[in-house]
Amino acid sequence: MKMANSDSLKDIANRLRINSIKATQASKSGHPTSCASMAEIMAVLFFDTMRYSLKEPRHPASDRLVLSKGHSAPILYAAWAEAGLFPQSDLLNLRKIDSDLEGHPTPRLNFVDVATGSLGQGLSCAAGMAVIGKYFDKTDFRTYCLIGDGESAEGSIWEAMAFASYYKLDNLCAIFDVNRLGQSEPTALQHQMDVYEARCRAFGFEPIVVDGHDVNALVAAFAKAAATKDRPSAIIAQTYKGKGFPDIEDKDNWHGKPLGDKADVVIKHLESQLKNLSLPIKPFNGSAPEVDMKVSLCEPPSYKLGEKVATRQAYGTSLVKLGKTNPRVLAFDGDTKNSTFSETYKKAFPDRYIECFIAEQNLIGVGIGAGCRGRAIPFVSTFAAFFSRAFDQLRMGAISQANIKCVGSHCGVSIGEDGPSQMALEDLAMFRAIPGCNVFYPSDAVSMERAAELAAQRKGIDFIRTSRPATPCIYSNDTVFEVGKAKVVKQSADDQVLLIGAGITLHEALKAADQLAQQGINCRVLDPFTIKPIDATGISENAKACKGRIVVVEDHYPEGGLGEAVSGALSGETGITIKHLAVREVPRSGPPDALIEKYGIGANSIIAAVKSFA
Amino acid sequence: MKMANSDSLKDIANRLRINSIKATQASKSGHPTSCASMAEIMAVLFFDTMRYSLKEPRHPASDRLVLSKGHSAPILYAAWAEAGLFPQSDLLNLRKIDSDLEGHPTPRLNFVDVATGSLGQGLSCAAGMAVIGKYFDKTDFRTYCLIGDGESAEGSIWEAMAFASYYKLDNLCAIFDVNRLGQSEPTALQHQMDVYEARCRAFGFEPIVVDGHDVNALVAAFAKAAATKDRPSAIIAQTYKGKGFPDIEDKDNWHGKPLGDKADVVIKHLESQLKNLSLPIKPFNGSAPEVDMKVSLCEPPSYKLGEKVATRQAYGTSLVKLGKTNPRVLAFDGDTKNSTFSETYKKAFPDRYIECFIAEQNLIGVGIGAGCRGRAIPFVSTFAAFFSRAFDQLRMGAISQANIKCVGSHCGVSIGEDGPSQMALEDLAMFRAIPGCNVFYPSDAVSMERAAELAAQRKGIDFIRTSRPATPCIYSNDTVFEVGKAKVVKQSADDQVLLIGAGITLHEALKAADQLAQQGINCRVLDPFTIKPIDATGISENAKACKGRIVVVEDHYPEGGLGEAVSGALSGETGITIKHLAVREVPRSGPPDALIEKYGIGANSIIAAVKSFA
Repeated sequence: MKMANSDSLKDIANRLRINSIKATQASKSGHPTSCASMAEIMAVLFFDTMRYSLKEPRHPASDRLVLSKGHSAPILYAAWAEAGLFPQSDLLNLRKIDSDLEGHPTPRLNFVDVATGSLGQGLSCAAGMAVIGKYFDKTDFRTYCLIGDGESAEGSIWEAMAFASYYKLDNLCAIFDVNRLGQSEPTALQHQMDVYEARCRAFGFEPIVVDGHDVNALVAAFAKAAATKDRPSAIIAQTYKGKGFPDIEDKDNWHGKPLGDKADVVIKHLESQLKNLSLPIKPFNGSAPEVDMKVSLCEPPSYKLGEKVATRQAYGTSLVKLGKTNPRVLAFDGDTKNSTFSETYKKAFPDRYIECFIAEQNLIGVGIGAGCRGRAIPFVSTFAAFFSRAFDQLRMGAISQANIKCVGSHCGVSIGEDGPSQMALEDLAMFRAIPGCNVFYPSDAVSMERAAELAAQRKGIDFIRTSRPATPCIYSNDTVFEVGKAKVVKQSADDQVLLIGAGITLHEALKAADQLAQQGINCRVLDPFTIKPIDATGISENAKACKGRIVVVEDHYPEGGLGEAVSGALSGETGITIKHLAVREVPRSGPPDALIEKYGIGANSIIAAVKSFA
Repeated sequence: MKMANSDSLKDIANRLRINSIKATQASKSGHPTSCASMAEIMAVLFFDTMRYSLKEPRHPASDRLVLSKGHSAPILYAAWAEAGLFPQSDLLNLRKIDSDLEGHPTPRLNFVDVATGSLGQGLSCAAGMAVIGKYFDKTDFRTYCLIGDGESAEGSIWEAMAFASYYKLDNLCAIFDVNRLGQSEPTALQHQMDVYEARCRAFGFEPIVVDGHDVNALVAAFAKAAATKDRPSAIIAQTYKGKGFPDIEDKDNWHGKPLGDKADVVIKHLESQLKNLSLPIKPFNGSAPEVDMKVSLCEPPSYKLGEKVATRQAYGTSLVKLGKTNPRVLAFDGDTKNSTFSETYKKAFPDRYIECFIAEQNLIGVGIGAGCRGRAIPFVSTFAAFFSRAFDQLRMGAISQANIKCVGSHCGVSIGEDGPSQMALEDLAMFRAIPGCNVFYPSDAVSMERAAELAAQRKGIDFIRTSRPATPCIYSNDTVFEVGKAKVVKQSADDQVLLIGAGITLHEALKAADQLAQQGINCRVLDPFTIKPIDATGISENAKACKGRIVVVEDHYPEGGLGEAVSGALSGETGITIKHLAVREVPRSGPPDALIEKYGIGANSIIAAVKSFA
């Protein structure tokens, strides 16, 4: 590299520092010292290494940058401003309520693919993007992920490392900003660069240790990374927090604080080093294949009424039907594919199945990354209980405006002998709490197939809860399903009580209704189909037609599931009373039917609840 | 070791295999092949290495064994039966509804400390136990944790590894059962023993690679581990799934299946190798210091009415007061101690604060482990949002009958500029869904201190939600608080509407009530104190005294929080209508007060909701 470039990169790094200070001074909060440690890295990435388009920051062929240490947002914003995407004066709007330059990056900004700020999540998303580039787009964009040393303690980083090396993602480059200081004390490893190097190498990355404040060394390191084949690279940069800030650099107690009184002195010091040099960004002329996101079942469901099929099995069938209409339907699983039936998809389309092994945080992160920029329709499956491992990733997924379809099998006590560790009994509460997430709970194979189709056709986070036991098909193959529209599956002219169940408990409700009918007590039975949005109108109208009496029964703990969805939806109404049957203690191992009755969600319990209204 | 012992250990290993087959044949489900790979490991652990008491399997000074690969429960049960804890015939009750020999181990059994079955969690719990042994009990018990190779893909394992080496837990021994095969396909690393070795070494463990079916080699390996000082050890055992089962050993498609028709042949084959030798367990005569779990605030809260104190700050104060009455009050945090105020405790009792760095899964796991066998009262803190990282650990904590106090700061939009990634808006949904978990949401410093005391005094999982902004003290210092009892904080003789808020929204409700009173509309204001259990009776009675009208307002998403707790509690009643104010979209950065109003949970929104009743 010519010396001129080197001087320009140094100038840019210091301007990024100055702008990070100014922005956090204006917002009176933020993390200028965490920006300062990565100033040279950002200068080199934006003005030497990366290829990207200012016209279209999310161009499908451009290099990706995930700022996993999202609290350093000000320097990301400063870099894009320096590149010319928007005026540098905008940086002073940092963290204002009417500015998209938020405290941590979100895709409200056109140059951000995934929200960051909960630490340790970026690398999984970056790996998902790299999988798309290498195996599906087959385009030469590179993916960079900037990781703080503090967050490298998160296990999700190491899940992503193992995944990226297994899939030989040589288009992925992790950058560790080892600035030695965490939020409240030095990190566990401080500047033990050899330990970082050994860990990265052991996890299959090409480790490149570098002085993170030496622009020439960084340029060489990124070049070495780009030349590394068959494995991802890790630039392990030794840096100093607050680098270049006199009396602040490498000092404790400066995390997450604007410089306050010291800002002027520091800015003057940095300005005194400027030579007023700049650089244009590198030319970009990449291209990527067009991706069509249109998708539907290639043929309608094909079951016989009464035929017993587990919804988890119908999931596999539905996915193959979707995959036949769109090659970008991708399946990801965490070594449970023979239980969730994502294996059916692998058998039909082996190249579109990505095994993620037992690492659910990374499973979700990779799915979120794969779904970015409209490059894929990712279906991610595991036992519903194990999505709880990735609640934080899902929470961030909502902020990321992610497009990901989560399918969780083995819900509730109806799984039987495996016992409570394998039973999802809080998954509805979790997914309902994710803003914008649709929660499907299909009760037969026909509705399962349509749930998968509806989920695939929408951009957003969707959850489909499938069940382990085989249950009878109750819908004809031409039934039309809609998000937020319930189905009445049994009714009469003089219904006394409305029974609401889903999955296994809908079938228990039907059993109870049959037995009650024989005793002269007619009940209406309602299948909500989606738990979120819940069909408040449909439930209210049917409840009123049943003397305002509801029994809601669910294979889930009482909190946050179907029962509270129903009572919440009706809380503005009077004249409706609800009895709520749910699993009210930690269950144990046993046969499914015995557990269903023992925990009070079976037909007998429903019958007793109905009779208690009298 | 004498050859006689070696032959006996081989015999025991095969008897454990036979019993694992017989038990899973009887239950018609389970994982005999996953047991077979670790039979020699278990034989050596139980009859050569470990020191334990059959009289008191949870003796505080005995060695601990955590079976992280919980699906191998049958061989754990078989080992205890072989040791003589209960008759071998009991093993045939595996997975029956009236047996505590469940599909995966739980502390319903007197020899299990923590439930396992969701993979990758055991090592954190074991590390928590080892911390107690080394730094608090100062007793020489050792802690063993048996980990499957498949689950070693879980990041939580590597969080635990980093933690254990940082704290030099030489009383901890991880055992990797590298049997090559996962549930649905070979593991990512198969038998690459050198990769496991490099990863363990890089994470600070002494790696000991061994033939996992050679009892002599295992005895030597455990001895080497015990002799290793200043670092934990990892026995990395090369094994074969289904070892010793003809036609099944090392073959795919045998995960999680009883042997069925092949059982008889396999059992005969194994029996043919038996020499009918056995061994007594090693003598045990350990002792550990007595631990008193009595705890209370050393002095009552000491605030002035109206004094502005953030509940997160009062948390730090309360913890010091608790620590003065019980030296086993321990604080754990994930590098947020200067935000959560657990730092206050560290300053008062530096030896009782354990920094866990940015690894929340391990943070919770270590806390659960530390709380086992009544050795500590662990308080674990981080931003409330980041507990979502450990939902699966908390879920398993409930099955583990764990004693752990979680304190989450920075809830809701009221944190302001940092933006949505840092805002807990689903934490109430999460903690409410954990069975048996109490959820405290104190609204001032006085109630905060009492919440901490009530949590400390109970064995179980508790969550305390603290707030970032300073809010006025509304209770006198001698106020008595109870779990599940709400407080009316404002009322009159002709209240029109009941306002329910907590934390920041209680103060917004009070503001609204003051303004409405000036307009001649009296409102009653209720502080639920605990969101779970919720005071159904208190809320119902007060609602009826307010014309059956409720406005409930929370700094949380609408699902699973305070609003649904209230509507769920009242769902059996008629004549009460509820308006529910909550954060209904992903929020953004901005000043706290502006965000509170923008997202419809401030005084103005409350006033509008009250008026809409008219």
